[in-house]
Amino acid sequence: MAGRMEIEGGAVDQLAGERSRAQFDVDAMKIVWAGSQHAFDVSDRISRLVASDPVFRKDDRTSLGRKDLFQNTLKKMTHALKRIVELRLTEEEGTKLRFFVDQPSYMDLHWGMFIPAIKGQGTEEQQEKWLPLAHKMQIIGCYAQTELGHGSNVQGLETTATFDPKMDEFIIHSPTLTSSKWWPGGLGKVSTHAVVYARLITGGQEHGIHGFIVQIRSLDDHSPLPGVTIGDIGTKFGSGAYNSMDNGVLRFSHVRIPRKQMLMRVCQVTREGNVLQSDVPKQLIYGTMVYVRQTIVSDASAALSKAVCIAVRYSAVRRQFGSQGGGPETQVIDYKTQQSRLFPLLASAYAFRFVGQWLKWLYTDVTQRLEAKDFSTLPEVHACTAGLKSLTTSVTADAIEECRKLCGGHGYLCSSGLPELFAVYVPACTYEGDNIVLLLQVARFLVKTVSQLGSGKQPVGTTAYMGRAEHLLQCTSSASSVEDWLKPSIILEAFEARAFRLAVACAQSISKFESPEAGFAEVSADLLEAAIAHCQLIVVSKFIEKLQEDIPGQGVKEQLRVLCYVYALHLLHKHLGDFLSTGCITPEQAALANEQLRSLYAQVRPNAVTLVDAFNYTDHFLGSALGRYDGNAYPALYAEAWKDPLNDSVVTDGYRDYIRPILKQTIFLSRL
Amino acid sequence: MAGRMEIEGGAVDQLAGERSRAQFDVDAMKIVWAGSQHAFDVSDRISRLVASDPVFRKDDRTSLGRKDLFQNTLKKMTHALKRIVELRLTEEEGTKLRFFVDQPSYMDLHWGMFIPAIKGQGTEEQQEKWLPLAHKMQIIGCYAQTELGHGSNVQGLETTATFDPKMDEFIIHSPTLTSSKWWPGGLGKVSTHAVVYARLITGGQEHGIHGFIVQIRSLDDHSPLPGVTIGDIGTKFGSGAYNSMDNGVLRFSHVRIPRKQMLMRVCQVTREGNVLQSDVPKQLIYGTMVYVRQTIVSDASAALSKAVCIAVRYSAVRRQFGSQGGGPETQVIDYKTQQSRLFPLLASAYAFRFVGQWLKWLYTDVTQRLEAKDFSTLPEVHACTAGLKSLTTSVTADAIEECRKLCGGHGYLCSSGLPELFAVYVPACTYEGDNIVLLLQVARFLVKTVSQLGSGKQPVGTTAYMGRAEHLLQCTSSASSVEDWLKPSIILEAFEARAFRLAVACAQSISKFESPEAGFAEVSADLLEAAIAHCQLIVVSKFIEKLQEDIPGQGVKEQLRVLCYVYALHLLHKHLGDFLSTGCITPEQAALANEQLRSLYAQVRPNAVTLVDAFNYTDHFLGSALGRYDGNAYPALYAEAWKDPLNDSVVTDGYRDYIRPILKQTIFLSRL
Repeated sequence: MAGRMEIEGGAVDQLAGERSRAQFDVDAMKIVWAGSQHAFDVSDRISRLVASDPVFRKDDRTSLGRKDLFQNTLKKMTHALKRIVELRLTEEEGTKLRFFVDQPSYMDLHWGMFIPAIKGQGTEEQQEKWLPLAHKMQIIGCYAQTELGHGSNVQGLETTATFDPKMDEFIIHSPTLTSSKWWPGGLGKVSTHAVVYARLITGGQEHGIHGFIVQIRSLDDHSPLPGVTIGDIGTKFGSGAYNSMDNGVLRFSHVRIPRKQMLMRVCQVTREGNVLQSDVPKQLIYGTMVYVRQTIVSDASAALSKAVCIAVRYSAVRRQFGSQGGGPETQVIDYKTQQSRLFPLLASAYAFRFVGQWLKWLYTDVTQRLEAKDFSTLPEVHACTAGLKSLTTSVTADAIEECRKLCGGHGYLCSSGLPELFAVYVPACTYEGDNIVLLLQVARFLVKTVSQLGSGKQPVGTTAYMGRAEHLLQCTSSASSVEDWLKPSIILEAFEARAFRLAVACAQSISKFESPEAGFAEVSADLLEAAIAHCQLIVVSKFIEKLQEDIPGQGVKEQLRVLCYVYALHLLHKHLGDFLSTGCITPEQAALANEQLRSLYAQVRPNAVTLVDAFNYTDHFLGSALGRYDGNAYPALYAEAWKDPLNDSVVTDGYRDYIRPILKQTIFLSRL
Repeated sequence: MAGRMEIEGGAVDQLAGERSRAQFDVDAMKIVWAGSQHAFDVSDRISRLVASDPVFRKDDRTSLGRKDLFQNTLKKMTHALKRIVELRLTEEEGTKLRFFVDQPSYMDLHWGMFIPAIKGQGTEEQQEKWLPLAHKMQIIGCYAQTELGHGSNVQGLETTATFDPKMDEFIIHSPTLTSSKWWPGGLGKVSTHAVVYARLITGGQEHGIHGFIVQIRSLDDHSPLPGVTIGDIGTKFGSGAYNSMDNGVLRFSHVRIPRKQMLMRVCQVTREGNVLQSDVPKQLIYGTMVYVRQTIVSDASAALSKAVCIAVRYSAVRRQFGSQGGGPETQVIDYKTQQSRLFPLLASAYAFRFVGQWLKWLYTDVTQRLEAKDFSTLPEVHACTAGLKSLTTSVTADAIEECRKLCGGHGYLCSSGLPELFAVYVPACTYEGDNIVLLLQVARFLVKTVSQLGSGKQPVGTTAYMGRAEHLLQCTSSASSVEDWLKPSIILEAFEARAFRLAVACAQSISKFESPEAGFAEVSADLLEAAIAHCQLIVVSKFIEKLQEDIPGQGVKEQLRVLCYVYALHLLHKHLGDFLSTGCITPEQAALANEQLRSLYAQVRPNAVTLVDAFNYTDHFLGSALGRYDGNAYPALYAEAWKDPLNDSVVTDGYRDYIRPILKQTIFLSRL
């Protein structure tokens, strides 16, 4: 395993014993995790390339001040670009390289938001003009949507773009403090251009929010253009983490841009100032949304699996209590409390991976339908992707922190990798749709679906189960033994009945209020729970579907089956109130499920370390002294400690000024 | 309100409207929160003193590199000491001053661990020698217990203290890498002395773990003494946060100390090397433990209330969606989803405050009993304080992060104050007993109590309810209306029955295994839930007891009553699976409780801002642009942004080297 952690040449693999106990073919599992042999090969090669390049070292990130960290980021990005060009990497390889460099930067926004915005919202003419410049990075762009006072509610944006027919220009202006663009990554210190979302005004009339390409810095000397005020918005959560990103603030004072720089694919402003809708269906933007959310779900499984990998390996290394007769203490991974917290997260990492792979298929499917102007599945697809984005990111954020706690005190050290992983991950709960706002959208769709059941409209896709309304309202679980909880049909029915009954209960509650809107607002806390139940059902059912595929490799499918049941049954336990209050299962059945869950944990135990090896992460990518492949956590922690800048000198810098005067009591003499 | 946030002289109080809606006397509530008029006066005066002193500014903490942050901490601590001396502050005032300076430092360990260790474990002679030096700070000490390989299990420590009768000395030695002392605060760069815990060896025999006073740095030039290796263990979670603390690593190579430096109050080594137990009862150390845990619970309510204060105020300032006819958008605090997440945390802050105040009484009680050699209540007191430490710190850690999420995207900025509050708080879940380990201790006690019920032994204190075993196993809740869930007796019975039935179920499960130990290990995940149920019952019952006191002030008790019910009923909803599976309540009764909870949220709403005003925190102490007293969150965020070091220059430092070569494409030309 390549990486900076190889501090001792011939270090013994402390986890060899664990690995020898595995009951499955780890190489075959690696392919399942990667999604394909090709995907595995690319990731494996590029991750090692990054790990072996000293410019990409990560171990100094958390002790650098803001300025040094930012400079270091710029350096890495320029180096990454050089390597991509020198090695003639494909686009796929280049993207992977940036993924494994693993440092948020302006590049993410340039490639991930600025270019897609022009592709999605620009006319062909606009694309021909701007995309070559952007692809060569002769301009660097960002995506300036949110404002100081406006986030989730895009319609509330205050920045104005007023058409001046005399000059054939738009005047971009920030009328208030709260209209300051706020948060765009890459804006604060790097971007030369921005796609700016603003309120279109022509002839004194408002025409909603549209995107505009606005140059913000000089291409000669990088200074902000006249009328443009730009800065960085300050430090963010964690050391290292997103502080390598120049999230920015941007204010316009009557900045003029040519009319042609409004993104006009869907809606255009003519030379005369008339607003015309094009015949491009608005629904096309949903394709992009599905794509973006699919990548977010995929990123969730990546982040979660990193955290789980660290926690599982360290739990096998760490020993505490239970020494008998002077022998070694017990590995903490052998404690049932550790297993009951850790193994559900391991199972969730796999569950999210598979639902992410399914979302890739869904994206292809929806793209084909959109091209054929079939918009019928869009509402369901929208609800499904919104829900999965919300569920997977919320769970992952909490799970990273749980993994940190599972590593005990040492998890609090940056050298464990977990604090930065958490800090860099949590914004995923907010960006691309706040998770609570998204769940309410899901709930709205569920309630609507319920209300239309009587009208003969058949629910589709992930809501198809609601078509069996009568059965789901009446069924009682047939689980009568511990083994019954290993039957997919019994698990699925319980999850379907729970999700459906919660949605129906919400719909009934809402109907008691004077208006649907008032009812929706009043019971919204319950709606969140119904939406979560639906999303969990999706993940469970996609995991079960995965098991129906042909999966090669000795023991691989058996392990995945165990993980699938762990995933489902831990949710059943966690949300027991839902299952019991809706009468989907009885307390006795819940006790059987819990007993099965305990037995499943015992089955995961001998395979745990190898199940995280299957992620195939280099020590560099993990960035964790605790999660080292070879299990030499203590020497690594020890070695990392001495790299701290505070250890540059033996006697600390402040000694003469601040410590000696106390010890020698001169501090008191001088003043009293 | 004093503090750095006063960026605009005549800023309007944006929250005046909120404050005018309050239905209670905020000044009276401030006294209730503080605990007494005296406690309020001291906190109020000292917090303003700190807030007005420019040396104590906090707004630069998160953008400083490690070295600068550490130097700044040394400076603040020396200044704090000067102020304490100059102003002739009492010990209480001095402690408060350090509390409001709000920066972790070596001072915390010197005063909070080193000195108490000598007081608690030193003989009178030893106290006479060392305490004056420590009180004057002619020596600075830390508490070196945990090792790289050993945390919770103190008996597993590897450092040795071998008595050499020839020289009348102990030889302190670190035999392995994992025996390196690891984590002690103040050790890395400051302390001159340490209380070192080591395995006592005399005459070739082991005699368990004992404490030794060891000098580690020269009092002349601060260099480590011969045989002593010391360093800082590196950066920790968050920017700012605990990085101001020099948590350290310490290794000994056969370091000799005089025999008299073993702390010998409980156990001594004679000149001949014999080990003698003194007649001081070992139980005395429990008094200290109760004291320390009481302060931790008190700190939990402080940290939680800070986070809630920020989130409540900003939720009243922030508006999103719901604009009608161009009017202002809806305050996010008016959304039921926001209320259902935020108000239980507000209620928890008050609940923890009161249980903390009760723990102060318990400490006094246990101290008096110990002095009278009455050890009868110790096991119960130990379980109770362990459980409350675990419960309050775990909830607070999660709650701070939840408050951050409730502040949306801006909560991710360090200027919101929440990231640092979280990062600085979470170690409380680990230190002074890992929360999971502590809960298992509670569970062990509960199971034992259950098993002894038949023997006629009456459970005492917080377990007294278990004496009504028969009733609690058979009772069914009599709640039959929404109003019934405002009856303390109905709430208490449900919580008691749930806690007791879970404990009984665990005891029964354990009895099915071959040995109690095997059973305990196997069902330990269930044991955690039983322990949590018991601890929640304690908090609920102490809150209800508080309401039975005479509480002056118009409307004050009414508000506390609402918060008490919010606290209890949100737990009932959150742990519904417990209540239903044990048959303590029915699904119908749960639905009534939920309806009551919704109604309670509506009652909290108009009082929410004033309920957090009652904490009486200065803007300096909150350290949050979002939580400003005057509600001017946006101007404050905007002003804070410009202070970031990245904004020192308009064109960023790396432009020439890293950005221009990309834009001008020279990066590609030079290499290909």
